[in-house]
Amino acid sequence: MSEVSADRLTRQVAFIAEADRLKTVLRNTRLTDGSRAENSAEHSWHLALMAVLLAEHAPPDTDISHAVRLLLVHDIVEIDAGDTDCYDADGYLTKAAREQGAAERLFGLLPQEQEREFRALWEEFEAGESAEARYANALDRLQPMLLVRHVTHREWSLRATTREQVLQRMAPVEHGAPGLWPIVTDIIEEAFTTGRIGRID
Amino acid sequence: MSEVSADRLTRQVAFIAEADRLKTVLRNTRLTDGSRAENSAEHSWHLALMAVLLAEHAPPDTDISHAVRLLLVHDIVEIDAGDTDCYDADGYLTKAAREQGAAERLFGLLPQEQEREFRALWEEFEAGESAEARYANALDRLQPMLLVRHVTHREWSLRATTREQVLQRMAPVEHGAPGLWPIVTDIIEEAFTTGRIGRID
Repeated sequence: MSEVSADRLTRQVAFIAEADRLKTVLRNTRLTDGSRAENSAEHSWHLALMAVLLAEHAPPDTDISHAVRLLLVHDIVEIDAGDTDCYDADGYLTKAAREQGAAERLFGLLPQEQEREFRALWEEFEAGESAEARYANALDRLQPMLLVRHVTHREWSLRATTREQVLQRMAPVEHGAPGLWPIVTDIIEEAFTTGRIGRID
Repeated sequence: MSEVSADRLTRQVAFIAEADRLKTVLRNTRLTDGSRAENSAEHSWHLALMAVLLAEHAPPDTDISHAVRLLLVHDIVEIDAGDTDCYDADGYLTKAAREQGAAERLFGLLPQEQEREFRALWEEFEAGESAEARYANALDRLQPMLLVRHVTHREWSLRATTREQVLQRMAPVEHGAPGLWPIVTDIIEEAFTTGRIGRID
Protein backbone atom coordinates (compact mmCIF):
# COMPACT_ATOMS: atom_id res chain seq x y z
CA MET A 1 0.00 0.00 0.00
CA SER A 2 1.41 3.44 -0.95
CA GLU A 3 2.00 6.08 1.73
CA VAL A 4 -0.73 8.28 0.29
CA SER A 5 -3.36 5.55 0.38
CA ALA A 6 -2.25 4.38 3.85
CA ASP A 7 -2.70 7.93 5.15
CA ARG A 8 -6.07 8.11 3.43
CA LEU A 9 -7.25 4.91 5.10
CA THR A 10 -5.93 6.11 8.47
CA ARG A 11 -8.02 9.27 8.13
CA GLN A 12 -11.11 7.31 7.14
CA VAL A 13 -10.76 4.97 10.12
CA ALA A 14 -10.20 7.94 12.48
CA PHE A 15 -13.45 9.48 11.25
CA ILE A 16 -15.32 6.18 11.68
CA ALA A 17 -14.08 5.89 15.28
CA GLU A 18 -15.02 9.51 16.02
CA ALA A 19 -18.47 9.06 14.47
CA ASP A 20 -19.11 6.38 17.12
CA ARG A 21 -19.63 9.21 19.61
CA LEU A 22 -22.92 10.18 17.94
CA LYS A 23 -24.34 7.16 19.84
CA THR A 24 -23.87 9.11 23.08
CA VAL A 25 -25.70 12.28 21.98
CA LEU A 26 -29.15 12.15 23.55
CA ARG A 27 -32.34 13.62 22.13
CA ASN A 28 -35.54 14.66 23.85
CA THR A 29 -37.53 11.86 22.22
CA ARG A 30 -37.93 8.59 24.10
CA LEU A 31 -37.99 5.11 22.56
CA THR A 32 -41.45 3.65 22.01
CA ASP A 33 -40.97 1.36 25.02
CA GLY A 34 -40.39 4.48 27.14
CA SER A 35 -37.19 3.00 28.57
CA ARG A 36 -34.74 5.77 27.71
CA ALA A 37 -33.95 8.80 25.54
CA GLU A 38 -33.19 8.15 21.89
CA ASN A 39 -29.67 8.90 20.69
CA SER A 40 -28.81 10.66 17.44
CA ALA A 41 -27.10 7.65 15.81
CA GLU A 42 -30.04 5.27 16.12
CA HIS A 43 -32.34 8.18 15.18
CA SER A 44 -30.33 8.59 11.96
CA TRP A 45 -30.72 4.88 11.18
CA HIS A 46 -34.47 5.10 11.75
CA LEU A 47 -34.75 8.07 9.38
CA ALA A 48 -32.66 6.40 6.66
CA LEU A 49 -34.88 3.32 6.88
CA MET A 50 -37.99 5.52 6.69
CA ALA A 51 -36.60 7.26 3.61
CA VAL A 52 -36.45 3.92 1.78
CA LEU A 53 -39.81 2.71 3.10
CA LEU A 54 -41.78 5.90 2.42
CA ALA A 55 -40.20 6.66 -0.98
CA GLU A 56 -43.62 6.90 -2.67
CA HIS A 57 -44.39 9.96 -0.49
CA ALA A 58 -41.29 11.92 -1.54
CA PRO A 59 -41.54 14.87 -3.96
CA PRO A 60 -41.48 13.83 -7.66
CA ASP A 61 -38.02 12.90 -8.99
CA THR A 62 -36.47 12.64 -5.52
CA ASP A 63 -33.27 10.57 -5.54
CA ILE A 64 -34.02 8.39 -2.53
CA SER A 65 -30.46 7.09 -2.19
CA HIS A 66 -29.22 10.66 -2.00
CA ALA A 67 -31.82 11.48 0.67
CA VAL A 68 -30.54 8.45 2.61
CA ARG A 69 -27.00 9.87 2.48
CA LEU A 70 -28.21 13.25 3.74
CA LEU A 71 -29.87 11.50 6.68
CA LEU A 72 -26.85 9.34 7.52
CA VAL A 73 -24.73 12.49 7.81
CA HIS A 74 -27.23 15.13 9.01
CA ASP A 75 -26.62 14.85 12.78
CA ILE A 76 -22.86 14.14 12.90
CA VAL A 77 -22.09 17.75 13.90
CA GLU A 78 -23.98 17.06 17.15
CA ILE A 79 -20.94 15.10 18.37
CA ASP A 80 -19.41 18.50 19.17
CA ALA A 81 -22.43 20.81 19.08
CA GLY A 82 -24.95 18.66 20.98
CA ASP A 83 -28.61 18.21 20.09
CA THR A 84 -30.38 21.57 20.32
CA ASP A 85 -33.92 21.11 21.59
CA CYS A 86 -36.48 22.45 19.13
CA TYR A 87 -38.13 24.60 21.82
CA ASP A 88 -34.85 25.97 23.26
CA ALA A 89 -34.84 29.57 21.96
CA ASP A 90 -31.49 30.44 23.59
CA GLY A 91 -29.84 27.32 22.21
CA TYR A 92 -31.04 28.23 18.73
CA LEU A 93 -29.22 31.59 18.93
CA THR A 94 -25.83 29.83 19.04
CA LYS A 95 -26.75 26.66 17.11
CA ALA A 96 -25.42 27.75 13.70
CA ALA A 97 -22.03 28.89 15.03
CA ARG A 98 -21.59 25.77 17.19
CA GLU A 99 -22.46 23.49 14.30
CA GLN A 100 -20.16 25.27 11.84
CA GLY A 101 -17.24 24.76 14.19
CA ALA A 102 -18.22 21.14 14.67
CA ALA A 103 -18.42 20.55 10.92
CA GLU A 104 -14.96 21.99 10.47
CA ARG A 105 -13.37 19.76 13.07
CA LEU A 106 -15.29 16.55 12.39
CA PHE A 107 -15.37 16.49 8.58
CA GLY A 108 -11.80 17.86 8.73
CA LEU A 109 -10.72 14.43 9.95
CA LEU A 110 -11.46 13.02 6.48
CA PRO A 111 -9.30 13.00 3.36
CA GLN A 112 -9.74 16.39 1.70
CA GLU A 113 -12.16 15.54 -1.10
CA GLN A 114 -14.30 13.48 1.26
CA GLU A 115 -14.34 16.38 3.70
CA ARG A 116 -15.85 18.48 0.90
CA GLU A 117 -18.31 15.72 -0.04
CA PHE A 118 -19.58 15.09 3.50
CA ARG A 119 -19.72 18.76 4.38
CA ALA A 120 -21.74 19.39 1.22
CA LEU A 121 -24.22 16.68 2.25
CA TRP A 122 -24.66 18.30 5.66
CA GLU A 123 -25.05 21.78 4.17
CA GLU A 124 -27.58 20.53 1.63
CA PHE A 125 -29.66 19.01 4.42
CA GLU A 126 -29.47 22.22 6.46
CA ALA A 127 -30.43 24.42 3.50
CA GLY A 128 -33.49 22.22 2.93
CA GLU A 129 -33.89 23.33 -0.68
CA SER A 130 -33.32 20.32 -2.92
CA ALA A 131 -36.12 17.75 -3.24
CA GLU A 132 -33.92 15.28 -1.32
CA ALA A 133 -33.28 17.74 1.51
CA ARG A 134 -36.95 18.65 1.75
CA TYR A 135 -37.90 14.99 1.97
CA ALA A 136 -35.16 14.29 4.53
CA ASN A 137 -36.22 17.26 6.67
CA ALA A 138 -39.84 16.10 6.50
CA LEU A 139 -38.88 12.70 7.92
CA ASP A 140 -36.71 14.32 10.59
CA ARG A 141 -39.76 16.23 11.84
CA LEU A 142 -42.21 13.36 11.46
CA GLN A 143 -40.24 10.62 13.22
CA PRO A 144 -40.33 11.99 16.79
CA MET A 145 -44.06 12.51 16.45
CA LEU A 146 -44.52 8.88 15.38
CA LEU A 147 -42.45 7.69 18.35
CA VAL A 148 -44.41 9.86 20.78
CA ARG A 149 -47.67 8.50 19.41
CA HIS A 150 -46.54 4.88 19.78
CA VAL A 151 -44.97 5.12 23.22
CA THR A 152 -46.23 2.27 25.34
CA HIS A 153 -46.24 1.91 29.13
CA ARG A 154 -46.76 5.62 29.68
CA GLU A 155 -48.99 8.49 28.67
CA TRP A 156 -47.90 10.19 25.50
CA SER A 157 -48.17 13.90 24.90
CA LEU A 158 -46.97 16.61 22.56
CA ARG A 159 -44.56 19.12 24.10
CA ALA A 160 -45.90 22.21 22.36
CA THR A 161 -48.64 24.25 24.02
CA THR A 162 -50.48 25.66 21.02
CA ARG A 163 -51.68 24.23 17.72
CA GLU A 164 -49.78 27.00 15.91
CA GLN A 165 -46.53 25.99 17.59
CA VAL A 166 -46.88 22.37 16.47
CA LEU A 167 -48.06 23.24 12.99
CA GLN A 168 -45.11 25.60 12.51
CA ARG A 169 -42.66 22.97 13.74
CA MET A 170 -44.17 20.32 11.47
CA ALA A 171 -44.52 22.50 8.35
CA PRO A 172 -41.52 20.80 6.66
CA VAL A 173 -43.59 17.61 6.46
CA GLU A 174 -46.31 19.33 4.43
CA HIS A 175 -43.59 20.91 2.31
CA GLY A 176 -41.34 17.86 1.81
CA ALA A 177 -43.69 14.87 1.95
CA PRO A 178 -47.28 16.12 1.59
CA GLY A 179 -48.63 12.56 1.39
CA LEU A 180 -47.59 12.08 5.01
CA TRP A 181 -49.27 15.26 6.24
CA PRO A 182 -52.54 13.50 7.25
CA ILE A 183 -50.56 11.51 9.86
CA VAL A 184 -49.42 14.77 11.42
CA THR A 185 -52.83 16.42 11.44
CA ASP A 186 -54.38 13.25 12.90
CA ILE A 187 -51.89 13.18 15.76
CA ILE A 188 -52.27 16.90 16.42
CA GLU A 189 -56.04 16.55 16.40
CA GLU A 190 -55.90 13.64 18.84
CA ALA A 191 -53.46 15.49 21.11
CA PHE A 192 -55.57 18.63 21.33
CA THR A 193 -58.89 16.78 21.59
CA THR A 194 -57.71 14.60 24.45
CA GLY A 195 -55.55 17.23 26.16
CA ARG A 196 -52.31 15.34 25.49
CA ILE A 197 -50.23 18.46 25.18
CA GLY A 198 -47.74 20.52 27.12
CA ARG A 199 -45.99 17.77 29.06
CA ILE A 200 -42.50 16.38 28.72
CA ASP A 201 -42.41 12.67 29.38
CA MET B 1 -57.01 9.52 0.61
CA SER B 2 -58.49 6.22 -0.67
CA GLU B 3 -59.08 3.32 1.71
CA VAL B 4 -56.37 1.29 0.00
CA SER B 5 -53.71 3.98 0.38
CA ALA B 6 -54.79 4.74 3.97
CA ASP B 7 -54.35 1.06 4.85
CA ARG B 8 -50.99 1.08 3.11
CA LEU B 9 -49.80 4.07 5.14
CA THR B 10 -51.11 2.50 8.35
CA ARG B 11 -49.02 -0.60 7.64
CA GLN B 12 -45.92 1.46 6.87
CA VAL B 13 -46.28 3.44 10.10
CA ALA B 14 -46.82 0.24 12.12
CA PHE B 15 -43.58 -1.16 10.71
CA ILE B 16 -41.70 2.06 11.51
CA ALA B 17 -42.93 1.96 15.10
CA GLU B 18 -42.00 -1.72 15.44
CA ALA B 19 -38.54 -1.10 13.94
CA ASP B 20 -37.90 1.26 16.86
CA ARG B 21 -37.37 -1.83 19.01
CA LEU B 22 -34.08 -2.61 17.24
CA LYS B 23 -32.66 0.18 19.45
CA THR B 24 -33.12 -2.11 22.47
CA VAL B 25 -31.29 -5.15 21.01
CA LEU B 26 -27.84 -5.19 22.58
CA ARG B 27 -24.66 -6.51 20.98
CA ASN B 28 -21.45 -7.72 22.57
CA THR B 29 -19.46 -4.76 21.25
CA ARG B 30 -19.06 -1.72 23.49
CA LEU B 31 -19.01 1.92 22.35
CA THR B 32 -15.53 3.42 21.95
CA ASP B 33 -16.01 5.37 25.21
CA GLY B 34 -16.58 2.03 26.95
CA SER B 35 -19.79 3.32 28.55
CA ARG B 36 -22.23 0.66 27.40
CA ALA B 37 -23.02 -2.09 24.91
CA GLU B 38 -23.79 -1.02 21.37
CA ASN B 39 -27.31 -1.64 20.09
CA SER B 40 -28.19 -3.03 16.67
CA ALA B 41 -29.91 0.15 15.40
CA GLU B 42 -26.96 2.48 15.96
CA HIS B 43 -24.67 -0.31 14.69
CA SER B 44 -26.69 -0.36 11.45
CA TRP B 45 -26.30 3.42 11.10
CA HIS B 46 -22.56 3.14 11.62
CA LEU B 47 -22.28 0.45 8.92
CA ALA B 48 -24.37 2.41 6.42
CA LEU B 49 -22.15 5.46 6.97
CA MET B 50 -19.04 3.30 6.53
CA ALA B 51 -20.44 1.91 3.28
CA VAL B 52 -20.60 5.43 1.84
CA LEU B 53 -17.25 6.48 3.27
CA LEU B 54 -15.27 3.39 2.23
CA ALA B 55 -16.86 3.02 -1.22
CA GLU B 56 -13.46 2.96 -2.94
CA HIS B 57 -12.68 -0.31 -1.13
CA ALA B 58 -15.78 -2.14 -2.38
CA PRO B 59 -15.54 -4.81 -5.11
CA PRO B 60 -15.61 -3.35 -8.66
CA ASP B 61 -19.07 -2.26 -9.86
CA THR B 62 -20.61 -2.41 -6.40
CA ASP B 63 -23.81 -0.35 -6.17
CA ILE B 64 -23.05 1.48 -2.93
CA SER B 65 -26.61 2.73 -2.44
CA HIS B 66 -27.85 -0.83 -2.66
CA ALA B 67 -25.24 -1.95 -0.10
CA VAL B 68 -26.52 0.83 2.19
CA ARG B 69 -30.05 -0.57 1.90
CA LEU B 70 -28.85 -4.06 2.76
CA LEU B 71 -27.17 -2.65 5.87
CA LEU B 72 -30.19 -0.60 6.98
CA VAL B 73 -32.31 -3.76 6.91
CA HIS B 74 -29.83 -6.52 7.81
CA ASP B 75 -30.41 -6.67 11.57
CA ILE B 76 -34.16 -5.98 11.79
CA VAL B 77 -34.93 -9.67 12.38
CA GLU B 78 -33.04 -9.35 15.68
CA ILE B 79 -36.07 -7.55 17.12
CA ASP B 80 -37.61 -11.02 17.54
CA ALA B 81 -34.58 -13.30 17.18
CA GLY B 82 -32.05 -11.36 19.30
CA ASP B 83 -28.40 -10.83 18.44
CA THR B 84 -26.63 -14.18 18.29
CA ASP B 85 -23.10 -13.87 19.59
CA CYS B 86 -20.54 -14.94 16.99
CA TYR B 87 -18.89 -17.38 19.42
CA ASP B 88 -22.17 -18.89 20.71
CA ALA B 89 -22.20 -22.32 19.02
CA ASP B 90 -25.55 -23.35 20.56
CA GLY B 91 -27.16 -20.08 19.52
CA TYR B 92 -25.98 -20.63 15.96
CA LEU B 93 -27.81 -23.97 15.80
CA THR B 94 -31.19 -22.24 16.12
CA LYS B 95 -30.27 -18.88 14.55
CA ALA B 96 -31.62 -19.57 11.04
CA ALA B 97 -34.99 -20.85 12.26
CA ARG B 98 -35.42 -17.99 14.75
CA GLU B 99 -34.56 -15.41 12.12
CA GLN B 100 -36.86 -16.90 9.48
CA GLY B 101 -39.78 -16.67 11.90
CA ALA B 102 -38.79 -13.12 12.78
CA ALA B 103 -38.60 -12.11 9.11
CA GLU B 104 -42.07 -13.49 8.52
CA ARG B 105 -43.66 -11.57 11.36
CA LEU B 106 -41.73 -8.31 11.03
CA PHE B 107 -41.66 -7.82 7.25
CA GLY B 108 -45.24 -9.19 7.25
CA LEU B 109 -46.32 -5.93 8.87
CA LEU B 110 -45.58 -4.15 5.57
CA PRO B 111 -47.76 -3.77 2.48
CA GLN B 112 -47.32 -6.95 0.44
CA GLU B 113 -44.91 -5.79 -2.25
CA GLN B 114 -42.76 -4.01 0.32
CA GLU B 115 -42.72 -7.16 2.43
CA ARG B 116 -41.21 -8.94 -0.59
CA GLU B 117 -38.75 -6.09 -1.23
CA PHE B 118 -37.47 -5.85 2.36
CA ARG B 119 -37.34 -9.60 2.81
CA ALA B 120 -35.31 -9.89 -0.40
CA LEU B 121 -32.84 -7.29 0.92
CA TRP B 122 -32.38 -9.28 4.14
CA GLU B 123 -32.01 -12.57 2.24
CA GLU B 124 -29.48 -11.05 -0.13
CA PHE B 125 -27.39 -9.86 2.80
CA GLU B 126 -27.59 -13.27 4.46
CA ALA B 127 -26.64 -15.12 1.27
CA GLY B 128 -23.57 -12.89 0.93
CA GLU B 129 -23.18 -13.57 -2.78
CA SER B 130 -23.77 -10.33 -4.66
CA ALA B 131 -20.96 -7.72 -4.70
CA GLU B 132 -23.15 -5.50 -2.50
CA ALA B 133 -23.79 -8.27 0.03
CA ARG B 134 -20.11 -9.21 0.16
CA TYR B 135 -19.16 -5.59 0.77
CA ALA B 136 -21.90 -5.18 3.41
CA ASN B 137 -20.82 -8.37 5.20
CA ALA B 138 -17.20 -7.20 5.15
CA LEU B 139 -18.16 -3.98 6.94
CA ASP B 140 -20.33 -5.89 9.42
CA ARG B 141 -17.27 -7.93 10.44
CA LEU B 142 -14.83 -5.04 10.37
CA GLN B 143 -16.78 -2.50 12.44
CA PRO B 144 -16.69 -4.26 15.84
CA MET B 145 -12.96 -4.76 15.43
CA LEU B 146 -12.50 -1.02 14.77
CA LEU B 147 -14.55 -0.18 17.86
CA VAL B 148 -12.60 -2.61 20.03
CA ARG B 149 -9.34 -1.10 18.81
CA HIS B 150 -10.47 2.44 19.60
CA VAL B 151 -12.03 1.79 23.00
CA THR B 152 -10.77 4.40 25.43
CA HIS B 153 -10.79 4.30 29.24
CA ARG B 154 -10.24 0.56 29.36
CA GLU B 155 -8.02 -2.15 28.00
CA TRP B 156 -9.11 -3.46 24.66
CA SER B 157 -8.85 -7.09 23.64
CA LEU B 158 -10.06 -9.51 21.02
CA ARG B 159 -12.43 -12.18 22.27
CA ALA B 160 -11.13 -15.07 20.19
CA THR B 161 -8.40 -17.28 21.59
CA THR B 162 -6.55 -18.35 18.43
CA ARG B 163 -5.36 -16.54 15.32
CA GLU B 164 -7.24 -19.09 13.22
CA GLN B 165 -10.49 -18.27 15.02
CA VAL B 166 -10.14 -14.54 14.32
CA LEU B 167 -8.97 -15.03 10.76
CA GLN B 168 -11.92 -17.31 10.04
CA ARG B 169 -14.36 -14.84 11.57
CA MET B 170 -12.87 -11.95 9.60
CA ALA B 171 -12.52 -13.77 6.25
CA PRO B 172 -15.51 -11.90 4.76
CA VAL B 173 -13.46 -8.70 4.93
CA GLU B 174 -10.75 -10.18 2.71
CA HIS B 175 -13.48 -11.51 0.43
CA GLY B 176 -15.71 -8.42 0.29
CA ALA B 177 -13.35 -5.47 0.75
CA PRO B 178 -9.77 -6.66 0.24
CA GLY B 179 -8.44 -3.09 0.44
CA LEU B 180 -9.46 -3.04 4.10
CA TRP B 181 -7.78 -6.34 4.95
CA PRO B 182 -4.51 -4.69 6.15
CA ILE B 183 -6.47 -3.01 8.97
CA VAL B 184 -7.62 -6.44 10.15
CA THR B 185 -4.20 -8.08 9.98
CA ASP B 186 -2.63 -5.08 11.79
CA ILE B 187 -5.14 -5.33 14.65
CA ILE B 188 -4.76 -9.12 14.88
CA GLU B 189 -0.98 -8.77 14.89
CA GLU B 190 -1.12 -6.16 17.64
CA ALA B 191 -3.54 -8.24 19.68
CA PHE B 192 -1.45 -11.40 19.55
CA THR B 193 1.87 -9.59 20.01
CA THR B 194 0.70 -7.74 23.11
CA GLY B 195 -1.47 -10.56 24.50
CA ARG B 196 -4.71 -8.61 24.04
CA ILE B 197 -6.77 -11.70 23.39
CA GLY B 198 -9.27 -13.95 25.10
CA ARG B 199 -11.01 -11.43 27.33
CA ILE B 200 -14.50 -9.97 27.16
CA ASP B 201 -14.52 -6.39 28.28
